[in-house]
Amino acid sequence: MLVVMKIDATETNIKAVVDAAEKRGYVARPIPGGDRVSVGILHNNGSVDTSMFLGFADVKEVIAVTKPYKLVSREVKKENTLVRVGDNIFGDGSLPVIAGPCAIESMEQAIETAKAVKEAGAGLFRGGAFKPRTSPYSFQGLGEEGLKILAKVREETGLPVVTEIMDCENCEMVEEYTDVLQIGTRNMQNYSLLKRAGKSNKPVLLKRGMSATLQEWLMAAEYIMEEGNLNVILCERGIRTFVKHSRNTLDLSVVRAVKKESHLPVIVDPSHAAGVRDQVIPLALAATCVGADGLMIEVHYKPEEARSDGAQSLYPEQFKECISKVKTIHSLI
Amino acid sequence: MLVVMKIDATETNIKAVVDAAEKRGYVARPIPGGDRVSVGILHNNGSVDTSMFLGFADVKEVIAVTKPYKLVSREVKKENTLVRVGDNIFGDGSLPVIAGPCAIESMEQAIETAKAVKEAGAGLFRGGAFKPRTSPYSFQGLGEEGLKILAKVREETGLPVVTEIMDCENCEMVEEYTDVLQIGTRNMQNYSLLKRAGKSNKPVLLKRGMSATLQEWLMAAEYIMEEGNLNVILCERGIRTFVKHSRNTLDLSVVRAVKKESHLPVIVDPSHAAGVRDQVIPLALAATCVGADGLMIEVHYKPEEARSDGAQSLYPEQFKECISKVKTIHSLI
Amino acid sequence: MLVVMKIDATETNIKAVVDAAEKRGYVARPIPGGDRVSVGILHNNGSVDTSMFLGFADVKEVIAVTKPYKLVSREVKKENTLVRVGDNIFGDGSLPVIAGPCAIESMEQAIETAKAVKEAGAGLFRGGAFKPRTSPYSFQGLGEEGLKILAKVREETGLPVVTEIMDCENCEMVEEYTDVLQIGTRNMQNYSLLKRAGKSNKPVLLKRGMSATLQEWLMAAEYIMEEGNLNVILCERGIRTFVKHSRNTLDLSVVRAVKKESHLPVIVDPSHAAGVRDQVIPLALAATCVGADGLMIEVHYKPEEARSDGAQSLYPEQFKECISKVKTIHSLI
Amino acid sequence: MLVVMKIDATETNIKAVVDAAEKRGYVARPIPGGDRVSVGILHNNGSVDTSMFLGFADVKEVIAVTKPYKLVSREVKKENTLVRVGDNIFGDGSLPVIAGPCAIESMEQAIETAKAVKEAGAGLFRGGAFKPRTSPYSFQGLGEEGLKILAKVREETGLPVVTEIMDCENCEMVEEYTDVLQIGTRNMQNYSLLKRAGKSNKPVLLKRGMSATLQEWLMAAEYIMEEGNLNVILCERGIRTFVKHSRNTLDLSVVRAVKKESHLPVIVDPSHAAGVRDQVIPLALAATCVGADGLMIEVHYKPEEARSDGAQSLYPEQFKECISKVKTIHSLI
Repeated sequence: MLVVMKIDATETNIKAVVDAAEKRGYVARPIPGGDRVSVGILHNNGSVDTSMFLGFADVKEVIAVTKPYKLVSREVKKENTLVRVGDNIFGDGSLPVIAGPCAIESMEQAIETAKAVKEAGAGLFRGGAFKPRTSPYSFQGLGEEGLKILAKVREETGLPVVTEIMDCENCEMVEEYTDVLQIGTRNMQNYSLLKRAGKSNKPVLLKRGMSATLQEWLMAAEYIMEEGNLNVILCERGIRTFVKHSRNTLDLSVVRAVKKESHLPVIVDPSHAAGVRDQVIPLALAATCVGADGLMIEVHYKPEEARSDGAQSLYPEQFKECISKVKTIHSLI
Repeated sequence: MLVVMKIDATETNIKAVVDAAEKRGYVARPIPGGDRVSVGILHNNGSVDTSMFLGFADVKEVIAVTKPYKLVSREVKKENTLVRVGDNIFGDGSLPVIAGPCAIESMEQAIETAKAVKEAGAGLFRGGAFKPRTSPYSFQGLGEEGLKILAKVREETGLPVVTEIMDCENCEMVEEYTDVLQIGTRNMQNYSLLKRAGKSNKPVLLKRGMSATLQEWLMAAEYIMEEGNLNVILCERGIRTFVKHSRNTLDLSVVRAVKKESHLPVIVDPSHAAGVRDQVIPLALAATCVGADGLMIEVHYKPEEARSDGAQSLYPEQFKECISKVKTIHSLI
Repeated sequence: MLVVMKIDATETNIKAVVDAAEKRGYVARPIPGGDRVSVGILHNNGSVDTSMFLGFADVKEVIAVTKPYKLVSREVKKENTLVRVGDNIFGDGSLPVIAGPCAIESMEQAIETAKAVKEAGAGLFRGGAFKPRTSPYSFQGLGEEGLKILAKVREETGLPVVTEIMDCENCEMVEEYTDVLQIGTRNMQNYSLLKRAGKSNKPVLLKRGMSATLQEWLMAAEYIMEEGNLNVILCERGIRTFVKHSRNTLDLSVVRAVKKESHLPVIVDPSHAAGVRDQVIPLALAATCVGADGLMIEVHYKPEEARSDGAQSLYPEQFKECISKVKTIHSLI
Repeated sequence: MLVVMKIDATETNIKAVVDAAEKRGYVARPIPGGDRVSVGILHNNGSVDTSMFLGFADVKEVIAVTKPYKLVSREVKKENTLVRVGDNIFGDGSLPVIAGPCAIESMEQAIETAKAVKEAGAGLFRGGAFKPRTSPYSFQGLGEEGLKILAKVREETGLPVVTEIMDCENCEMVEEYTDVLQIGTRNMQNYSLLKRAGKSNKPVLLKRGMSATLQEWLMAAEYIMEEGNLNVILCERGIRTFVKHSRNTLDLSVVRAVKKESHLPVIVDPSHAAGVRDQVIPLALAATCVGADGLMIEVHYKPEEARSDGAQSLYPEQFKECISKVKTIHSLI
């Protein structure tokens, strides 16, 4: 951490910063610059509140130099983390695809969609049993019945399943049925849920928050890993910006940025970024090009009848085309 | 809802929209315009997925006309909702002030700070026992011990207390000790928590999410009210933008916008918007001017020793000055 | 335009909206809905100030239905506009690549870089002679000397050149030397410059503003076309968001959105979005996948000595790799 | 500037950074930290391209410590700059108010509005003769005729006038008529225009760009001052965010931030932030509370007939109420 003092900072105020840092057990080293003094705070191990010194007299700015994360950091662990789910490996350079409807609506819908995505080349099936919806009047998912359908899908198709947990209460029930626990965008900083997922022996798919910085997202993963669960898959799904022509703005730069900072695999969900069907395939291909470790794509056997996210769900034949193109592109980069 | 068709939309495709709407129980009425047809979907009662029609052939755009909320809407209930907590009333034109530290750190810290803020004119005391922190290595709060300190503060000072719930598990415990349940920014769309709070008989202070639209925020309140708890206080605390000179950007326009759309009281937290102490008083006054129904301000008896948010916490004497100015301004508008 | 009235709007106030619209020459048609009246304003030809009715009594919301642009609209002209520059065609499904340094620094730098990019497969050369820099103390470009170097580059390599105009004054001079006039991000809404470019017989490359909506960007193109110059190439280069891990956030969804709304070609500049070299190739490939009509990439023969944008400029050998991959991918989609 | 190296950076790569910095004339000083080396670059005088070192091997991050501005900086000049226009002083703690219509539409409109705002207490009159409009089909202003009307307004009322320049060409003409040159939001980074305004002997009112950071805004002022014109008034008018309930989001924190960084006066335009009339007065009061050095407010004698920005223009009687409240509040803080 670098505490930048004002040009005319007094000796007393510089000393106050040094003393406060040392009182908290850090090494503080004043660094005279061209026209001002900065105080370097060394050996901080990630838990310093960088805002602390902002309130001190004559302090102009406080700059975090060392990142606060540990377990997620590639500086701590150089090799990619590989997360295995059935025959799929996230992080080894392959490109597993998770596909399925937004929500599980019925046995027929789930099984038919699952068969179609499997045939097209998907490696995992997705579908929500508990749905976080903006409106309490929207369809909230089938609950445990949905989980049972997911289990049936796995039995019938052999595909591992991914489904969302919404709170600590239902986590245990969901764990019984699913292969991967998904934590949704709106819960990315639900720390109780992150800790609970950290105690699970199931891999966790952690979606990025709507306006989460890279650091906040990695810190959310740190919460899970700190509890002992090292199998975290990150998932970019678009961020909130001023833009109105897509549901969210897909931040493809973050894929490279994650890989520089962290050893965790990072996949991309083009469906939620797009919000409309006709952008999904282009964005899926784009995600493949930037080195995503996997894709998550919404597919519905009858999108126009879907109870949620119909507009962004691919038809099975479109998904087939999508996967085929994705595989071609992936083999070339 | 208005489904805007492309200029050259075919009769068949227009009819497909009409049919799908009617199949779902709505009234669909084609409205010929200057150069294109739009289809008005009437009598929708808030639960239509506006994105549904986006995927239909020849549809150019879908525009929501009726807002999806019911219970929170001022069109449904014209008079302001008044939320009473002890002697404080939120929503009646008065300006109750909630003050206290970010986190409860010790009995001394809590009691001393509480006495100071009471003397200065605060009507409620705040302090976190369970803290949602970006880093798992940051201070997470004292837990139940913190709640007991809060109870002691109330006993000693007579001030009602406000504290945060982080999950359904600890909600019951928190309810025993607190007067107002706070739901934090990061949990604004934690729907399980919202539903749980909706079953409580304690008022709920609902902070706006980091990048929540007005509609998403009101829908989160709708979740609470739908479960039966009508005592919801909204709290604006700054939104995430590209700006770096403050922790968040305080959106004061939202106060007026909330009041137009809803009958719920809305207060402002200038501390989290500012992130640094010297912006807190100006922003508190500004919030008073736009008609906030209350303020929430961080105060610490020794900010430089605070375990969190020290930089944005006022010194007791500053808070006294703040309240005094706020009251003067409030009496004039 | 749809003027949505409040639920309890009075007859008088509804009539006031109708009258005001008709006074201005529009057709106003009240549309009774489930619980409120909306007034449709028909035959508006793009020049209605949608905000006008917002100020009227009992008006809840005003919704623009018809887009305000004419000449840029695909509803007006269905076929893609093809912009030809030398042997390059933008908009016909091919993928011309514009490459070169941020700024022209010297004859050697320009010629060496131009030869390298030509050999690698670029179809046009770029380089700034007049540079809009955030700081007045940064290198501002070589001015006319830079333009002369560009002319020499064209003579030597046969590549058409693209360079930026910064104001109406220097436009004439730039026109003499360049093949394409570039209007930069910061000048996207410099309407005097847009109009001047609209009088030129050179194609215009119009970069998207830092926080421009799709509509604002298309309206800027409309300014150019309205003056008679129909050869406009749009260029997405990243938007400003809260994100800090890249210089800007590349909005790839906008490529598809432009193509739906407009017949103009749209290219992508991954270099300015990335801000750092190692993201450029992945983003260039991603742009290819979403259907960009061309790419603009910064290349410098010695990036570490560049006077601007060195960090995001590719080395010639990297550019060669980039083009080779881009062409492979492009041939497959 | 601090160049943060990767944990395992090689000696060679650290030396490459040091050498490159020294080659460019800086002092480079490696600073060993807890687990990594950073290189401090000293005596940089604002013109270093911080992105330069980003491209070097083993560099993790580059952090600007010294701000790049000089003339605008409060570290260079401690006392407030006072800008005098007629009897008004911006920057001395008083609160001059600039009021008038968006655009000059006719002699009657201008004179009637000017008389009304003068009577209410405004100190300057505003009105556009050249209007930057998003659409080429919107009213573009009366041009020189508008300027003549402005001159007449000054003659009749004694109020100094403020009007916008759109390009270098019309700057000379505008200078003849106006007392203050306004540079609009969309031209904040039109560097040719900034330089031209820097050569004028009229004060410049510089509006903040739609998504300009504090630093970019101050650098724009630096461009003007660098050319010799030290009379710059900054004007906050709302920034672009994801928010839809107001036209822009008024960033009141920036007022304090400007005052910390710079000696220039900063005023606030609540009208463009609001976009709708009923938010203007509250935001004007809020701006007064955060210490704005002036206000700019749109007023029209007949808002419902305004050719632009009618929805956000106050009626004369509302403006009177506004000024009266503003003055009361201002006298108390």
